[in-house]
Amino acid sequence: MDRKGIFRKRKPPLGSVPGTLSIDEESPFPKISLIEFDRDYLKEEIIRNVENLASVISATDRVHWIDVQGLGDEATIRKLGEVFSLHPLALEDITNVPQVAKVEEYDNCLFVCLPMMRMEEDSVVYEQMSLFLGETFVLTFQERYGDVLDPVRNRMRRNSRIRSMDNDYTAYAILDTIVDNYFPVLQSIGSELEKLEEELVESISREKLKDLYLMKQKLAQLRRLVWPTKDVIGRISREESEYFKDQTVLYLRDVYDHIIQSLDMLDISRELSSELMNLYLSSTSNRLNEIMKVLTIISTIFIPLSFIVGIYGMNFVYMPELSLKWGYPVVLIVMGVVVFIMLLFIRRKGWFRK
Amino acid sequence: MDRKGIFRKRKPPLGSVPGTLSIDEESPFPKISLIEFDRDYLKEEIIRNVENLASVISATDRVHWIDVQGLGDEATIRKLGEVFSLHPLALEDITNVPQVAKVEEYDNCLFVCLPMMRMEEDSVVYEQMSLFLGETFVLTFQERYGDVLDPVRNRMRRNSRIRSMDNDYTAYAILDTIVDNYFPVLQSIGSELEKLEEELVESISREKLKDLYLMKQKLAQLRRLVWPTKDVIGRISREESEYFKDQTVLYLRDVYDHIIQSLDMLDISRELSSELMNLYLSSTSNRLNEIMKVLTIISTIFIPLSFIVGIYGMNFVYMPELSLKWGYPVVLIVMGVVVFIMLLFIRRKGWFRK
Amino acid sequence: MDRKGIFRKRKPPLGSVPGTLSIDEESPFPKISLIEFDRDYLKEEIIRNVENLASVISATDRVHWIDVQGLGDEATIRKLGEVFSLHPLALEDITNVPQVAKVEEYDNCLFVCLPMMRMEEDSVVYEQMSLFLGETFVLTFQERYGDVLDPVRNRMRRNSRIRSMDNDYTAYAILDTIVDNYFPVLQSIGSELEKLEEELVESISREKLKDLYLMKQKLAQLRRLVWPTKDVIGRISREESEYFKDQTVLYLRDVYDHIIQSLDMLDISRELSSELMNLYLSSTSNRLNEIMKVLTIISTIFIPLSFIVGIYGMNFVYMPELSLKWGYPVVLIVMGVVVFIMLLFIRRKGWFRK
Amino acid sequence: MDRKGIFRKRKPPLGSVPGTLSIDEESPFPKISLIEFDRDYLKEEIIRNVENLASVISATDRVHWIDVQGLGDEATIRKLGEVFSLHPLALEDITNVPQVAKVEEYDNCLFVCLPMMRMEEDSVVYEQMSLFLGETFVLTFQERYGDVLDPVRNRMRRNSRIRSMDNDYTAYAILDTIVDNYFPVLQSIGSELEKLEEELVESISREKLKDLYLMKQKLAQLRRLVWPTKDVIGRISREESEYFKDQTVLYLRDVYDHIIQSLDMLDISRELSSELMNLYLSSTSNRLNEIMKVLTIISTIFIPLSFIVGIYGMNFVYMPELSLKWGYPVVLIVMGVVVFIMLLFIRRKGWFRK
Amino acid sequence: MDRKGIFRKRKPPLGSVPGTLSIDEESPFPKISLIEFDRDYLKEEIIRNVENLASVISATDRVHWIDVQGLGDEATIRKLGEVFSLHPLALEDITNVPQVAKVEEYDNCLFVCLPMMRMEEDSVVYEQMSLFLGETFVLTFQERYGDVLDPVRNRMRRNSRIRSMDNDYTAYAILDTIVDNYFPVLQSIGSELEKLEEELVESISREKLKDLYLMKQKLAQLRRLVWPTKDVIGRISREESEYFKDQTVLYLRDVYDHIIQSLDMLDISRELSSELMNLYLSSTSNRLNEIMKVLTIISTIFIPLSFIVGIYGMNFVYMPELSLKWGYPVVLIVMGVVVFIMLLFIRRKGWFRK
Repeated sequence: MDRKGIFRKRKPPLGSVPGTLSIDEESPFPKISLIEFDRDYLKEEIIRNVENLASVISATDRVHWIDVQGLGDEATIRKLGEVFSLHPLALEDITNVPQVAKVEEYDNCLFVCLPMMRMEEDSVVYEQMSLFLGETFVLTFQERYGDVLDPVRNRMRRNSRIRSMDNDYTAYAILDTIVDNYFPVLQSIGSELEKLEEELVESISREKLKDLYLMKQKLAQLRRLVWPTKDVIGRISREESEYFKDQTVLYLRDVYDHIIQSLDMLDISRELSSELMNLYLSSTSNRLNEIMKVLTIISTIFIPLSFIVGIYGMNFVYMPELSLKWGYPVVLIVMGVVVFIMLLFIRRKGWFRK
Repeated sequence: MDRKGIFRKRKPPLGSVPGTLSIDEESPFPKISLIEFDRDYLKEEIIRNVENLASVISATDRVHWIDVQGLGDEATIRKLGEVFSLHPLALEDITNVPQVAKVEEYDNCLFVCLPMMRMEEDSVVYEQMSLFLGETFVLTFQERYGDVLDPVRNRMRRNSRIRSMDNDYTAYAILDTIVDNYFPVLQSIGSELEKLEEELVESISREKLKDLYLMKQKLAQLRRLVWPTKDVIGRISREESEYFKDQTVLYLRDVYDHIIQSLDMLDISRELSSELMNLYLSSTSNRLNEIMKVLTIISTIFIPLSFIVGIYGMNFVYMPELSLKWGYPVVLIVMGVVVFIMLLFIRRKGWFRK
Repeated sequence: MDRKGIFRKRKPPLGSVPGTLSIDEESPFPKISLIEFDRDYLKEEIIRNVENLASVISATDRVHWIDVQGLGDEATIRKLGEVFSLHPLALEDITNVPQVAKVEEYDNCLFVCLPMMRMEEDSVVYEQMSLFLGETFVLTFQERYGDVLDPVRNRMRRNSRIRSMDNDYTAYAILDTIVDNYFPVLQSIGSELEKLEEELVESISREKLKDLYLMKQKLAQLRRLVWPTKDVIGRISREESEYFKDQTVLYLRDVYDHIIQSLDMLDISRELSSELMNLYLSSTSNRLNEIMKVLTIISTIFIPLSFIVGIYGMNFVYMPELSLKWGYPVVLIVMGVVVFIMLLFIRRKGWFRK
Repeated sequence: MDRKGIFRKRKPPLGSVPGTLSIDEESPFPKISLIEFDRDYLKEEIIRNVENLASVISATDRVHWIDVQGLGDEATIRKLGEVFSLHPLALEDITNVPQVAKVEEYDNCLFVCLPMMRMEEDSVVYEQMSLFLGETFVLTFQERYGDVLDPVRNRMRRNSRIRSMDNDYTAYAILDTIVDNYFPVLQSIGSELEKLEEELVESISREKLKDLYLMKQKLAQLRRLVWPTKDVIGRISREESEYFKDQTVLYLRDVYDHIIQSLDMLDISRELSSELMNLYLSSTSNRLNEIMKVLTIISTIFIPLSFIVGIYGMNFVYMPELSLKWGYPVVLIVMGVVVFIMLLFIRRKGWFRK
Repeated sequence: MDRKGIFRKRKPPLGSVPGTLSIDEESPFPKISLIEFDRDYLKEEIIRNVENLASVISATDRVHWIDVQGLGDEATIRKLGEVFSLHPLALEDITNVPQVAKVEEYDNCLFVCLPMMRMEEDSVVYEQMSLFLGETFVLTFQERYGDVLDPVRNRMRRNSRIRSMDNDYTAYAILDTIVDNYFPVLQSIGSELEKLEEELVESISREKLKDLYLMKQKLAQLRRLVWPTKDVIGRISREESEYFKDQTVLYLRDVYDHIIQSLDMLDISRELSSELMNLYLSSTSNRLNEIMKVLTIISTIFIPLSFIVGIYGMNFVYMPELSLKWGYPVVLIVMGVVVFIMLLFIRRKGWFRK
């Protein structure tokens, strides 16, 4: 069962001081990169000294996207928390992954966390994306190196529309790209399911039953991941938080529509898998019917015949039929008649019809 | 499985700039027709030069219905977008079909998109209708040539009530006609289902099980198409958007009632198909019972008899019964008694009752 | 399948001008009767000339109940529409039956339509009742001759409380009587169901399965008819429309309670039918178990015995047992022992317990 | 099926004047008792002349609880209605039992009706309690003699807290006691269910299936009785009707909590019974599997053997094996090998595992 | 069935005066401990004389946490009620365990009760925690000695953040720790379920079916315990009761998120167990199919053969085949052909495919 790889267990700190960070030992050391730009200017930089960021983000007329990949060092994350004045509970949510998708408005910034998914060689790679949107910065935390956001970076480099917009538009572009990447994952699952459907329609086996069972589990858990995302995006696209401008909110509504479509696809898949299970069960009982029909037809015809031949296999001394000249052919004819009657009976029962 | 033909996959642009149009290569070149009218005037025209439209729609005292059939040319659609000042996200929604039905109010117009269905030689033809209602125009986009709106055009030509009404009434007439065309589709499915019902009640086969399975899928997906339409029409018939006048809103409420009726018909069909599945399953297990009853009756009677005749087929030298004169008839009588007892037993079990 | 008789198909006008009346050819010619009364005065009259009604209903101090039975003549209905200034969409709702139950408030009157049911010789007769309540009149439309409203008419004639009340009270009395007549229909279905229950508990047959299936369908569709009625009455008993006085609203709340009770009865029946289906299925598989137990017991005992007697039926020349004097009785004893062991085995399996 | 005893049919007056009382002939003659008290005074009295009550309840500084047991005389009830100025619809609700639990606020009093249940020799006795709370009185109607309210009466006699409170507190005490008496009924059903569970886990029989079926019905109907009670108490404990003082409302909230707990217990029982049904079904199919395994094992081993011995039972003149000295033992060995192979095959199929 | 140990029955006082305490005799004698602290001061004390507490909690500048473990003495609890002016209904809720989780705002304090769970040697230990938050105190009641709150006590001793906060933060810390302790319980159940899953996938037995049945029951009841907790915490984290400061409410929202996660885990487990039940049922019917296939294959091949050999076992005097030299080998060949045909037939039916 491979689902444990994709859907890890939560690691809640038991009875610990709120704000305790549970650092996953397998998470790599944080790699911090900064993209700073306005309409006419673009700088990409790898940040080694976190303290420097404080002065960088004080520039109010530029967009600053600070992207942190890897959560493997508590000190770095705490330092980032200080520089950006992040609330201890938000820091906790970053590291104690996976969180249910959520949005929280703090005094100095908006905090959004949601699942990021991508296909990597036929398997779903999942990690949590935590995003802070402040007046002068967008700060993102990812669990691992590598993400789905290269299209966003390229748009920044290409001097497209995003360059003339504000921090909130960058945040939107990131959220939009993450949500757009749910589709290929769902499509891959959809086509897996269709393959399973074709196989199930052809033949019935215990193996495929288990595959279907695992698929249903996967779908249930995917839905559990994506469902809260809907509320999160829905809330920020409705409530017009002060961090998102009216203009951007219209775009967020578009992201919201995409999530609705994702959930729609998920529900289609879930329904399909439920119906497949039903089809499987019906097919099984149908198949049993067919098997038993054959057994019963064979038995109905031959058991009486065997009885008849058994009679004349008895060794009684006085069995007058045995010595009759026409005994044998008559018995054969009688048996033929029995077969004929039985066939009639079976046909009237409708067992020859498919 | 023909459902892919009817329910195509969505093609979301992955990580692309918002506003990217994904032009379907199979969609034909846009054919633009204009109907301009007031109470005393009617002009129908095929528009070849999109720029001309700007001056046409500046006439505030006439209704202008610009109908675009085919989405196969990005340039044309972008030009239309400019002339009518459509929002980039709305343009995206026009071309990246199919969208979930929705309504969005932009600065200069109301945008509604919903599914358009019609029967064409026993199969459902489905496309997306996008409608913009502005102060001086109604602009519609369809994926393909041909639609269900000829009755509306005829009413315009016939100088009926629609001629003395405003743009919003034309928009209503279009929406109404689209929704009215859901009925024949649903009725055709309903009668297919009733045919299936009759067949299923008569005999049980794996083929019909698959038909039923496919039918349930189709119904589920139809519902998924029509359901959001309810919210869309519901919203514009309640919120009294500035684009629809009070007078027209009353008519929209009528459209809303029709959607409710469509969903009602869908639900009746869905329930029917679920009950049919149940009936199928119960019938199968009922049938199995009958088959097994026959097998058991035959076996219960003949297996003991075969054992008895087997005994007297043994070749022991000292079997005193064999040489008795009455041995054979006595055994026959004994077997008759056994048969009688078994029949009594079976009758008491109630297996002869149907 | 008789459900088509009761639950007819809707006939929506496809793409027609809104306000088109679809006259059912089987509906009889409209018969219009007027009851005009106040505390001291009562006149019953058959109206032949619709135009006369205009002056009649201008009397503001009397109650006027105009009852139209039969919808078979478009001209009459249109003329009535003019006299009472009915909205074209309301006229459409009267004739394009059946409508989902609804209430609509127009400028000069309140429009309510809801299903009217009565038992007629063991079958449910269903038609749509459309009621308009204006300042000085109550106007009702029925699809056919004959209705359930004679008790209301009698109360008017008997000079009871209704005579000293206003038009709104008459409207209430009509609605109340219609809703009260749901009960006998539901009770008749309830007792049909109980009969089915008793039969199903006794024996299991395919026939009864189909009866149950049809019953479930009927219940589902009845619920679909009655359910919207709840909202309709609920709305007018809550919102205190200007057409119903405060005093009468209290009575409407009582009607609402009756609808709740009807739905309650329907739900009890629906639950009962679902549980019956479950019981049926469980019984079937239980029955199969019993059948197979008998087959297996018979087979388990006799198949080994048949094998043993088969051995000594072989014709080998050198079978020393055959010529032994005690061979036959020993074999009989061995078989007895086998039977004994098998019976023990079966008893330990618990197959003799019921 | 004893459910008809507990859950009687409603008897709605068909098309009758609203306010018609349907007197149940089996209901006893009304017995009216009055308890009048304040902190220092207590009088218990059997009222024979209803008119006297008018002057009694005009005393505003005392609590008056008038308890009417038995609804068998229309005149008495109508007279009570006049003395207490009860609304005709409320009178109707008292006698046309059973009503769905409800609360209605009239001009001069609050009307509450809800089901009263108690265990009487292993069976549930159910009747409707109707309660009117006015400024100076609490008036209760019960269908039969005998109730669950003796603890309330004793608290009045014992000069406990209730003596220094107002009429609304007495009403609360009555409601509280009625709701508290739901628990023993639910507990008795719960333990019945647990007994059924133990029996079902041990063996599977058609009898117990029917018991379970009846139990599920009973639970469904109990829930239908108790569920509306929640809304009733919830409404009066929230809306702070003028008849209940703030102080008492806090106590009503406690009653509300008890109803929630009752419904909780009911839901636990309902879930348990559903799971039991599932367990039953799974057990049945499990049992079938075991039976068929035995049949198949026996058949798989003996049918081939019987064929082999059948061969050498043939009477061909030229069957060389028959005259071989080692023919018989070789055939026996061959059959042993066949048995061994078959056993291996069966073990590999895993049929010997439980 | 061990669920009774964990999920005890409620003991409602039947018709007793509200405020009656039902003291559980198995509950130990109350042990009262006080922790009093501010930033610079900490005192831990065992309280023997409850009256002293009145003066202690009058100090408004310190946090006082009074923890009562054991509810075995009514006098003590009543005295505590007086000292802290607790409402009689709240006292009732403390002792009449278990209550559904709830929150109630009284005049002088906020009352919260919720379930406390912990693992103790593989079994869930459950008790009710009742918490009162007043201006100057936090008062907690527990049913038994021992709890999950030692981490909170240690944080107080360690002079951590909690020392510089107010009473409401202490209340939060307690609630947080209780909710955090739901996770290990759920994880233990989750892993039990996964073990069951692995076993069920391997083999099908009645024992495991019962385990699964019990597990589903346990999960249903756990959910019933935890579900109301969500509303309780949700309400105090939203409504900003005066007892919780704005700052602390942010932390309560975090507790709320944890409850959501617990319920999420519960739902995953519940879904898993339902799917397992389905898998079990499908596997059973699949298994039956396989068994019957074997039986039918064996029967289909051997029953006709046995008939053939039976024919030539008949003792007719005139059976010409018997004396033919090639009779025996021809019959053998014929039987071989029959076997071949039957195998072909079986293969075409697809019964050899798994």
